[in-house]
Amino acid sequence: MADGAGDGPQLPFTTDEYADRLDRVRTAMAAAGIDLLVATDPSNMAWLTGYDGWSFYVHQAVVVPMDGLPLWWGRMMDTHGAKLTVHLPHDRIVGYSDDHVQSTERHPHQHLAALLGDHGWADARIGVELDNYYYTAAAHQHLVTGLPDATFVDATALVNWERAVKSEREISYMRCAARIVERMHRRIVELIEPGMPKNELVAEILHTSAMGVEGAGGDYPAIVPLLPSGADASAPHLTWDDRPFASGEATFFEIAGCHRRYHAPLSRTVFLGDPPPEILRAEVAVVDGLDAGIDAARAGNRACDIANAFYGVLEEHGIERSGRCGYPIGLSYPPDWGERTMSIRPSDTSMLEPGMTFHFMPGLWMSDWGFELTESILIRDEGPAEPLADHPRQLFVKR
Amino acid sequence: MADGAGDGPQLPFTTDEYADRLDRVRTAMAAAGIDLLVATDPSNMAWLTGYDGWSFYVHQAVVVPMDGLPLWWGRMMDTHGAKLTVHLPHDRIVGYSDDHVQSTERHPHQHLAALLGDHGWADARIGVELDNYYYTAAAHQHLVTGLPDATFVDATALVNWERAVKSEREISYMRCAARIVERMHRRIVELIEPGMPKNELVAEILHTSAMGVEGAGGDYPAIVPLLPSGADASAPHLTWDDRPFASGEATFFEIAGCHRRYHAPLSRTVFLGDPPPEILRAEVAVVDGLDAGIDAARAGNRACDIANAFYGVLEEHGIERSGRCGYPIGLSYPPDWGERTMSIRPSDTSMLEPGMTFHFMPGLWMSDWGFELTESILIRDEGPAEPLADHPRQLFVKR
Repeated sequence: MADGAGDGPQLPFTTDEYADRLDRVRTAMAAAGIDLLVATDPSNMAWLTGYDGWSFYVHQAVVVPMDGLPLWWGRMMDTHGAKLTVHLPHDRIVGYSDDHVQSTERHPHQHLAALLGDHGWADARIGVELDNYYYTAAAHQHLVTGLPDATFVDATALVNWERAVKSEREISYMRCAARIVERMHRRIVELIEPGMPKNELVAEILHTSAMGVEGAGGDYPAIVPLLPSGADASAPHLTWDDRPFASGEATFFEIAGCHRRYHAPLSRTVFLGDPPPEILRAEVAVVDGLDAGIDAARAGNRACDIANAFYGVLEEHGIERSGRCGYPIGLSYPPDWGERTMSIRPSDTSMLEPGMTFHFMPGLWMSDWGFELTESILIRDEGPAEPLADHPRQLFVKR
Repeated sequence: MADGAGDGPQLPFTTDEYADRLDRVRTAMAAAGIDLLVATDPSNMAWLTGYDGWSFYVHQAVVVPMDGLPLWWGRMMDTHGAKLTVHLPHDRIVGYSDDHVQSTERHPHQHLAALLGDHGWADARIGVELDNYYYTAAAHQHLVTGLPDATFVDATALVNWERAVKSEREISYMRCAARIVERMHRRIVELIEPGMPKNELVAEILHTSAMGVEGAGGDYPAIVPLLPSGADASAPHLTWDDRPFASGEATFFEIAGCHRRYHAPLSRTVFLGDPPPEILRAEVAVVDGLDAGIDAARAGNRACDIANAFYGVLEEHGIERSGRCGYPIGLSYPPDWGERTMSIRPSDTSMLEPGMTFHFMPGLWMSDWGFELTESILIRDEGPAEPLADHPRQLFVKR
């Protein structure tokens, strides 16, 4: 329980921490020339206010002015959930009526435009998350049409960037999530065998995920388990079906533990039977590459230094791969557990800072097999990054 | 297994069924004056092509021209998943390079605009799903900028409407989903007791959900279990935490079974201890109201007839409620298992047709408690709708 909680919501963070987040966002708004921010990404809404509910399938937002408290805005029935989860006084929680929902006559963002006008923000410079989740083209058109005197500024990922460096409490939630994902992987290796229908193993993974660990219940990860086998593992984002696991196939398990919406993703690959030489070579290369990447993941280095260290080792092993091999992680809602700011790739020169957390995620998706062995890492004050989970860094083989 | 499957993907439907869907969509396109449709809603993409993967956190689409085969377009690494799941030949599957992903320099919809231009569609009348999931304001801006000679038409929900009437095979998948959700609810009533941490019951729900039933494995529902208790149940969309269930509280369980992405949602409420009179009154009113609504849910009646029948009974019982009390269901991906076309509400005059399926969902969210008792229903050729699940229509009480 948070010490910030009184009679009101059981907040996951102190009110001081929320105040500090708001300060950081306002500094970023000022730098971007924004008077008023409309954040629709559910992860940003939660990070700013504590809001937690599966209501992001309808339009909703947190509105951040430069002075005064933010507004939570959403569907009327969800104002109850907002009152139960956000740190704002009830008069800062505003709902639109249900006849705006999936209506062809009324759009929620017409209501939002009127609300912003009523608050004196009709001619503001308004930052909107043009490319964040759930801010549709229609939402933007209605907001622009409803506020003809406002100026709109692209604020995509503005809040996401402020989430990059984690607080002590955020890190403690991610450590709980790491304990959970370790347990999920142990359970997989314990149970998997040829002939077991895939969905039955998923049942055990999901069970372990929600059970959590002593003192830390499991929350739902922002992505469901991904576990393609054999040739299907050439595709990174397949989920599961009810066909059985087969001998002679590698299956990678891309899963995350989640506690209070904070994630620790971790992937491992399991081979049933005797692995062929190319998969054993992949194991050696990726293990060495992870070592090199983690060693380069230091405060003062750049995101690309991790990627270059990893790709350097892979090249020595004669494996060709390019593109992204990781991204920042933390608080998230579906459809993604990444923060969508930095990328661990050769072109990204973002500076690494203590408290940043990444999923270092160098999957290999070849023409007829796939291999994943990944780590969630924390950039420390000094020295190489700390892997959040403690799980053997190897290919698991069951014969 | 689908009889449409050969050496290629294990399609959930015959190629004839996909061809029929395409015909229906093209007829709707013609009626709307659209030459080319860009469908980004993952449910629409799957319904049109079979595409199945958790890749909707990056930009992707299915492009439907009036003549010739559709295109699947998405991230290069996901073209592998597309080749494994869609009914299109591989030359109709097109990927954009990874340096478009979460980049501030390149946007995937710049790539899409160029692709459409290359296909000779630069001056087409292009239908875009302005308010469907994952079509962001930025995506639209890049497409419009990249195709200055095209005309853009709002095609929000155009494909969704074509999904309303289900085929025999779709209904058979939903019947499997209904068997699954029955089992999930039985497990809840079996296990729930005061003192049990909520996440531990969720673990059992998720386990049962993925296990599925004989011959039909469980897939992931598009919404995670919602199960608020006591005063929290005044809020419809809270998920769970690790606090224990308490005596003297009602908890509603809004959950769905899912098979091959087809859903059968069903909500029931469990009271631990002796329920107070207002909850017993709610039970009687909602059970009677559901009966009346299901009796009105007949081919030839309208969506509003279901709502009016239900609200009529509620009013007789002295309970005030308004707004939506249901929506169409079927194939879905997060964040919603609804189809986002019709609404069961007094203002919706959509005609009910045989084969339509709805979640008739009259939740009561009062100031300090909540009650849900719902049914997934199928409109029949004649007579009242068929509830897909067979689960006692009552408040469950455990003392």
